Amino acid sequence: MEVSTSRLEAFSDGVFAVAITLLVLQFTVPEVASGKLFSALLGQWPQLVTYVASFLTVGVVWVNHHAIFKGLKAIDRTIQFINLVLLLTIVLVPYPTQLLGHYLSSGQNGSVAAALYALVMTAMSLSFQTLVAWALTHPNLLQPGVVERRLRVVLPRFGLGLIIYAISIGLAFVSAWLVVALYGATAVYYAFNQLPWVEES
Amino acid sequence: MEVSTSRLEAFSDGVFAVAITLLVLQFTVPEVASGKLFSALLGQWPQLVTYVASFLTVGVVWVNHHAIFKGLKAIDRTIQFINLVLLLTIVLVPYPTQLLGHYLSSGQNGSVAAALYALVMTAMSLSFQTLVAWALTHPNLLQPGVVERRLRVVLPRFGLGLIIYAISIGLAFVSAWLVVALYGATAVYYAFNQLPWVEES
Amino acid sequence: MEVSTSRLEAFSDGVFAVAITLLVLQFTVPEVASGKLFSALLGQWPQLVTYVASFLTVGVVWVNHHAIFKGLKAIDRTIQFINLVLLLTIVLVPYPTQLLGHYLSSGQNGSVAAALYALVMTAMSLSFQTLVAWALTHPNLLQPGVVERRLRVVLPRFGLGLIIYAISIGLAFVSAWLVVALYGATAVYYAFNQLPWVEES
Amino acid sequence: MEVSTSRLEAFSDGVFAVAITLLVLQFTVPEVASGKLFSALLGQWPQLVTYVASFLTVGVVWVNHHAIFKGLKAIDRTIQFINLVLLLTIVLVPYPTQLLGHYLSSGQNGSVAAALYALVMTAMSLSFQTLVAWALTHPNLLQPGVVERRLRVVLPRFGLGLIIYAISIGLAFVSAWLVVALYGATAVYYAFNQLPWVEES
Repeated sequence: MEVSTSRLEAFSDGVFAVAITLLVLQFTVPEVASGKLFSALLGQWPQLVTYVASFLTVGVVWVNHHAIFKGLKAIDRTIQFINLVLLLTIVLVPYPTQLLGHYLSSGQNGSVAAALYALVMTAMSLSFQTLVAWALTHPNLLQPGVVERRLRVVLPRFGLGLIIYAISIGLAFVSAWLVVALYGATAVYYAFNQLPWVEES
Repeated sequence: MEVSTSRLEAFSDGVFAVAITLLVLQFTVPEVASGKLFSALLGQWPQLVTYVASFLTVGVVWVNHHAIFKGLKAIDRTIQFINLVLLLTIVLVPYPTQLLGHYLSSGQNGSVAAALYALVMTAMSLSFQTLVAWALTHPNLLQPGVVERRLRVVLPRFGLGLIIYAISIGLAFVSAWLVVALYGATAVYYAFNQLPWVEES
Repeated sequence: MEVSTSRLEAFSDGVFAVAITLLVLQFTVPEVASGKLFSALLGQWPQLVTYVASFLTVGVVWVNHHAIFKGLKAIDRTIQFINLVLLLTIVLVPYPTQLLGHYLSSGQNGSVAAALYALVMTAMSLSFQTLVAWALTHPNLLQPGVVERRLRVVLPRFGLGLIIYAISIGLAFVSAWLVVALYGATAVYYAFNQLPWVEES
Repeated sequence: MEVSTSRLEAFSDGVFAVAITLLVLQFTVPEVASGKLFSALLGQWPQLVTYVASFLTVGVVWVNHHAIFKGLKAIDRTIQFINLVLLLTIVLVPYPTQLLGHYLSSGQNGSVAAALYALVMTAMSLSFQTLVAWALTHPNLLQPGVVERRLRVVLPRFGLGLIIYAISIGLAFVSAWLVVALYGATAVYYAFNQLPWVEES
């Protein structure tokens, strides 16, 4: 009773699409007196920053998620469950994003918000890597052509990503801004440097 | 004028994906003084618990929903209507989840919230079983290979699930926590032990 | 530069799925003292009523929408635009639903809310019929086998539906309840008695 | 490791569908005394205006997005990234829509809200044109039949659109209404006059 690759992808795509769209809900209309709207909107720029960082991060995870599933020819129950846990972290993203947008420029609370943000992102990254590791160690699930050689390239690369993410939890207590900047930059970097493991398929 | 299996699945997938993603909306940014955010976030852990329990439950129902439809070769109007009622209960889930997250640790109100949660889950389970029972008793809707022998396995199994769910409504008045734990555990159990009836297809 | 039938259907399905799921947002957690939650939840039953009525109505429109598109082999710009207007009314539905759930049992305001509800539903019905009428009068868009004979059956049938919907706007001032009951009943009726025009395809 | 055209389209469709549906959330139930609901609802008409303008605009962008992708046979990383930026602007649309619906008839704040609205729409338009320009200047990505001759037609046409959009930012300080009217009219115009570049495919 395996779920077909295509339907699992379609469901995951739906979850990604909704989660990424809910990011907009962190913006709320400020109630201000006449002539004060411009400065009130300027005051929302931390939310714009977290919006962009989270949007790009989730977008890039989606692209990589697609790359992984393109390399699979079958799905077992474990992968299905790992994928569900990955989606559970993706769906959570709008909350720390909103929290960080709210507290970004407020000292100690800003660090706590940034730490939670980094924690959720790290959990997301960890689920993602578990998914990749499971796929790579179960050759019966892989498309022909996705093989060994790739394995040696992908795992350390992702391992590095995970270490950076984990470090960012501590970084939150140095500066909340650093955390957002790190995630934004990482997303842009990955957007142009993606998973090589199924390049030729 | 029958709806094709694939488009009914696509629509259902969309509804599942959105409902599961709306679960995040129960988390709201706490407005606290400087240095108080950490403890305010810790205070949100009941919401994290209900979030995880509902996410896994809906996720597992989605997987089983897929399994059922994979065994169908056609859909009649009755199945279409039962499916609509099933989706009606799925879409409702974020509300009792939020309610339970809010009242989980507050005595009498917690029990009422847990009872509503269990009630909605039971209604969902009941619609699901009606769907399965209808499919199994209408061989003209089934794929070849999904037959009788399976029928004897699946119905009692699901019957048991329904009884557990119904009992959980009463259980809410013993402890709200027990209800969430039960649903979380059930979801994890089902994630690894799924419907066997179309295993060989 | 015509949009393919399948992608227009996929986009429409997405909109239907999201709109139907947002119906749950009308339920908000009541803030009450210990021991008062049960009666507070009972007080939300008008919202449950409007939730069910709208859910079934949108669900049935989705089924009929699918039936229409199954009978089309091509789409022109006009149909595309009519479809966009139809979706515009579908997306609006959660608002009058929430409004009516809030004011259902409050006399004069209840009638105004019910009238708005009926107005949006009538606009939806009108767009839907325009879509059907356009399709039926442009044989070049139709699948072979969807022909003339059907035309004579479908148009009066839908015309009747539209008249009932339009009357319900006035009915709101007799009783808000009557309006909800009418839509609920109509949805259940249509769920079991669907468009015959492409039955044999 | 290229994303297939079809899956990128499916993900984009999901994002468009959710973003367009979230437009309804700007309507909130007014809390009024008995007999006051009718006038309170009439007072929401600016929100209805911005709702319709944004709905049609996003709807038409979706149609054009589909037209572009229909002309592509492959996607490179750059297009994928430009598309992500385009979606980032689409997802943002519900916020300026809600803001403008709230402040439309309030003098100076109305102009600021309209300027932000025009700014987001211009960013959307700019991303869209960058996407088109990239596609047209990379013949290896295009379907056979989408060629040179088209290039000379499409680019100036879109360039004109972009100029109109950019001007509308300044127009906001003349009249907020003018901005909404302009976007509504543009959307209806484009709904009937779409991209010619893949007409014959």
